[in-house]
Formats: sequence, structure tokens, C-alpha cells
Amino acid sequence: MREAYQEQLDHFANHLGDMCGAVSEAMRRATAALLNADLSLAEQVIDEDTRIGEARKAAEEQAFALLALQSPVATDLRVVVSAIHAAEDLERMGKLALHVAKTTRRRHPQPVLPEQVREDFSEMGRVGVELGKKAERVIRTRDLELAMELEQDDDEMDELHRHLFAVMMSPEWPHGVAPAVDITLLGRFYERFADHAVALARRVVFIVTGKMPGDD
Amino acid sequence: MREAYQEQLDHFANHLGDMCGAVSEAMRRATAALLNADLSLAEQVIDEDTRIGEARKAAEEQAFALLALQSPVATDLRVVVSAIHAAEDLERMGKLALHVAKTTRRRHPQPVLPEQVREDFSEMGRVGVELGKKAERVIRTRDLELAMELEQDDDEMDELHRHLFAVMMSPEWPHGVAPAVDITLLGRFYERFADHAVALARRVVFIVTGKMPGDD
Repeated sequence: MREAYQEQLDHFANHLGDMCGAVSEAMRRATAALLNADLSLAEQVIDEDTRIGEARKAAEEQAFALLALQSPVATDLRVVVSAIHAAEDLERMGKLALHVAKTTRRRHPQPVLPEQVREDFSEMGRVGVELGKKAERVIRTRDLELAMELEQDDDEMDELHRHLFAVMMSPEWPHGVAPAVDITLLGRFYERFADHAVALARRVVFIVTGKMPGDD
Repeated sequence: MREAYQEQLDHFANHLGDMCGAVSEAMRRATAALLNADLSLAEQVIDEDTRIGEARKAAEEQAFALLALQSPVATDLRVVVSAIHAAEDLERMGKLALHVAKTTRRRHPQPVLPEQVREDFSEMGRVGVELGKKAERVIRTRDLELAMELEQDDDEMDELHRHLFAVMMSPEWPHGVAPAVDITLLGRFYERFADHAVALARRVVFIVTGKMPGDD
């Protein structure tokens, strides 16, 4: 019984790892589409989102199966509920990549980004994808040191986000309000993507140690 | 056993109803603080957020107790997991009210809103709070007709949101980029608050009927 349970749980963790890989790839493509005003790449991200939604439903079904068939208690129960939350984080990360892709599609063939902020978004994309990939490794390996690294990487995202605002609000900003509205929302999407990656790593820490980081 | 289970579940639903009341009140106050540049009201919302976080933790503990002590299966199990998701929606709604309050505090004693968009935010606040209160009634009464109304109310929020963008992007917008950035984020906070209220109502529909609205 115990062995079957562990096997099902490992299978579940692999499924979440796969989802994390998929949403990181979605954000990588969405960023490339944004930087290059690449409509067909944006469309790919938009089409793929359905698959991420299905993966989320499959994750929830696996959680139900674990809960119903094995009736876990105590720590085991918390592990399964954490995994349900993790699947929700992952679906949301997919939606944020989707929003980036949809912004690219909405403005096509115009590029969304003026030259001044291109580098910022290239970096935000890099940091976001890196966070997603690290979260995937944390899910697969339960490496707690790696989980801690995500908090620092998230500081880098916040720094990039602040720089973005500074650029838009400087007196030299020549592009007016319309691009600023797009950029503000896009910045928010990357920031939230990073927040969810950090939340994922924290959930793994909780699963391994029984405590949320900073909860003592 | 069955009776004790039902009693615990009712208690849980009441707790979520209370949380929903609390986050609606937080958004009502956050909006009033925003409209009147009222720092002390904004501070109240910021202070109250801790209580909402605690209520979320208490909700999760109730869910664990139900799962561990009663080992529900099939529909009962889905009800408990839906309630876990509902608590997450509610905590997020609290955070969105918090973000509105923090924006007010950050700009104080300057008002965040230029006169042109004051009415829009007054309306977005009204619709958001109304959605929150309806979601509370849906949680408490499981009234499916009322649950359906939330989808329409959300259309009203989307319409207000679109109007807001039109105002900022019109050639007559004299306020430049800085207020537009604040307004874009604030608009997003209200829109997401409404989305979560709709998600709550959908979860109740799922609990009652076993199907998500639009899932057939």
C-alpha cells in the first residue's frame, strides 16, 4: 500500500515537473514573440494554453485519486494539498505567458515595445524562464538549496521591474501613454510569473520540511 | 458520522462566507480611501490584511480536519477541494484590495486619481464590492440563479475597464505617463478582484451541481 502510494506520488511530482517545463517554455516563446513581433510564435503560445489547462485538470484528478484511494493523513495529506496548489500556480503561470502572447498578437504588425525597454523585457524574460526552470528542478529533485536561490532571483525580477517604471516615468520618455499602458501590464505579467515560481519552490520546501520558508 | 461531517462542512462554508464579507469590506474601504486620498482608511485596509491571511490559514486547517477525520470520497471530496480553492481566491481578493490601499498610501498626500477617471473607479469599486457581496450570498445560500448573475456583473466590470483605457489613450489626456501607470495597475486590480468573485460563484455551482458552468 505504502509503496503504491509513493509510486503514485512520484508520478504526480513528475507530472507537475512536466507542467513547469511547459509553462517555462511558453514564457520563453512568448518573450521571443514579444521582442520580435513574431505573430506565429505568439499564436503557438496561445494554442498551447489549452494543453496547460488540460494538464492542470489531470493534476487535480491525480490528487483526487490519491486522496480517495489512499486517504492520506497528517504530512501525506499536506503533501497532496500542496501539490493541488502547485498545479494552480502552474496554470496561472501559463495564463501569464498567454497574456504576453496575446499582447503581441493584439498590436501586430506593430511591435509592442519601444527600443528603450527592449533590453528590460529581454532580461525579464530571461529571469522569468530561469525561475521557471529552477522551480522545475526543485519539483523534480526536492533540492532545498536550489529552492532558496529562487528568492534571490525574484529580487532581480523586482529590480528589473522598478527600472522599467523609471524608464517610462523619466522626462525623456517620448512614447506617451499608449505604449506605457501595455508595458505596465506586461511588467506585471512577468512579475507575477516570477512570484508563482517562487511560491512553487516554497511549496516544495514545505513538502520536504513541513515548514514554509520564513514561517518560524 | 454523516451528521458530524455535514455540520463541519456547514461551519466551513460559514467561515468562507465571513472571509468573503471581509474582503468585500476591504475593497469598499480601499476604494473610499482611493477616491478621497484618505490615508487612515488605507492604513486600516493594510492592517486588516493580516487577519485575512489568518482566516485563509484557518480555512485550510478546517479542510485538513475534514479530509483527515472523515476521509470523504467522490463528491464530498470534490467539495472540500473546491473549498480549498475558494479560500485561495478569497485571500487573493484581499491582496488586491491591499494593493489598492497601498497605492493610495504611496502617493499620499497627493490623490492617485485625476478627476477624469474618478467616476470610473467609483463605479469599478461599486461593481467589485457588489460582486463580492453576491459571492458571499452564493456561498451562504448556494443560490444558483444568483451565481449566474455574477457573470453578467463581471461584464460590467470589463466594460468599465475598457472605458478607463479609452480615457487614458484619448488625445485629451493631459496627465502624462505617471498617473497612467498607476491607473493601469489599479484597473487590473479591480478586474482581477471581479474575476476571483466569479470564480468563487463557479465553485459553488460546481459543488451543488457537480459541473462547472459552461463545462458541458
